[in-house]
Amino acid sequence: MRADAPIGVFDSGVGGLTVAREIMRQIPNEKIIYFGDTARVPYGSKSKETVTRFSKQIVRFLQTFGVKTIVVACNTASAYALDALEAECDIPVIGVVKPGAKTAAEVTRNGRIGVIATDATIGSQIYTKYIKELNREVTIYGKACPLFVPLVEEGLLEDPVTDEIARRYLAELIDIDIDTLILGCTHYPLIRSTLARIMGEQVTLVNPAYETAYELKEMLAERKLLNEEEHKLGTNQYQFYVSDGAEKFKRFANSIIKYGILSAKTINIEEY
Amino acid sequence: MRADAPIGVFDSGVGGLTVAREIMRQIPNEKIIYFGDTARVPYGSKSKETVTRFSKQIVRFLQTFGVKTIVVACNTASAYALDALEAECDIPVIGVVKPGAKTAAEVTRNGRIGVIATDATIGSQIYTKYIKELNREVTIYGKACPLFVPLVEEGLLEDPVTDEIARRYLAELIDIDIDTLILGCTHYPLIRSTLARIMGEQVTLVNPAYETAYELKEMLAERKLLNEEEHKLGTNQYQFYVSDGAEKFKRFANSIIKYGILSAKTINIEEY
Repeated sequence: MRADAPIGVFDSGVGGLTVAREIMRQIPNEKIIYFGDTARVPYGSKSKETVTRFSKQIVRFLQTFGVKTIVVACNTASAYALDALEAECDIPVIGVVKPGAKTAAEVTRNGRIGVIATDATIGSQIYTKYIKELNREVTIYGKACPLFVPLVEEGLLEDPVTDEIARRYLAELIDIDIDTLILGCTHYPLIRSTLARIMGEQVTLVNPAYETAYELKEMLAERKLLNEEEHKLGTNQYQFYVSDGAEKFKRFANSIIKYGILSAKTINIEEY
Repeated sequence: MRADAPIGVFDSGVGGLTVAREIMRQIPNEKIIYFGDTARVPYGSKSKETVTRFSKQIVRFLQTFGVKTIVVACNTASAYALDALEAECDIPVIGVVKPGAKTAAEVTRNGRIGVIATDATIGSQIYTKYIKELNREVTIYGKACPLFVPLVEEGLLEDPVTDEIARRYLAELIDIDIDTLILGCTHYPLIRSTLARIMGEQVTLVNPAYETAYELKEMLAERKLLNEEEHKLGTNQYQFYVSDGAEKFKRFANSIIKYGILSAKTINIEEY
């Protein structure tokens, strides 16, 4: 495997761009092939079998680019499909759940950690499993927040309605006095300031996107797979593929990532 | 074609059950095969190409049951794919858009009609096209309401948040004094009372589910394809198929349809 091979990153749609953005920031010499499954988004309300089948198709697509590693930039796919993807690939596969769980286990002081995520991720109990492996004394409280993704996609990032919905979802987590809150869905960092305001200053928000990019960097360094060479203009360092609506994706992506999405192409993922 | 063959009905998910319910009410002797594409829901934010490809797969699946007609119980699929489906089938295909458009053109008195629907349906301008064919003097105002579907699926049918979002979406339609409002998405009849309260008594709400079932009945009668024989208990009159999450679908369906959903089966629609 060559250090100048690209990194494959995928998500059910645009949420994983918050992870891609962190990778661009932390290891700016890397090439990225991003895939967003916009024809079949969202994953968070779907079953393990379906999310696993979709994820395997995407991994087969990303491997056609000779990627050196794959980042599952979607909590639901990480929760449901990571084991199956690792079993099928001979390259490292990194999910967003483990890095977020690790940080939360480290930063909590009172041992009460909240996780907000999709129905699927909460139902899988995956954060509880990973955190308990690191620290059996900790208690984890999960709360599914299914309206956050549509509110973000509707652009209501700072809005009284998002405030009201967030207050309802978070009320029980405030009541039980958590001191750490994992943003267990890649869309949620986009309403981070609303969540921080409602939870209050004493609660640490953990953004798995940041932790995942950090773990990716460490793993690549360990295997001597970090790309040392700087990219020149016009080298097509970042490539974006979607299963539907490339133009709409490009507009949303450009509002999140400041590096400029030069192009996004639509492919038929069901063929992989 | 035999009169005792079943009717195929499909939607991107559960919304089309409001149409199936009307068919069960208006022509109670008919067998129905319902398919909900819960693995790829929603359609309303996706492109014409993708929605058409998905719809063709579903029609191929429904035809394996020897259906005598197909009802496209989804406004987005009706808007984007009806022509392509008609071209491919030798049985009649009925969408929900035309019947709703016809009724709205008939009931308006001041000639100002509002349509609320998904981004895709509004963008397609399909209601405008059909209504203008019937009455060139009418003005149609379309408004996309992308948050209504997730709010309904979250069960917030009577809720201050749904009220607030509905007030925002409907404000401009109230301002321009429409007297008729088409519920151009099969989920919307489930928040009909909220919509009626905000629009006021002087506005007639048109529910295409009702009109579609009526048109279906007329069409079958004309072709002598109405099933005359009453069904006996245990004849499996209504069959439900989904592409994901059969149990979850069954729970939701049972809250909408009072005839009892005996079973729902999951199939892999990508194989069709």
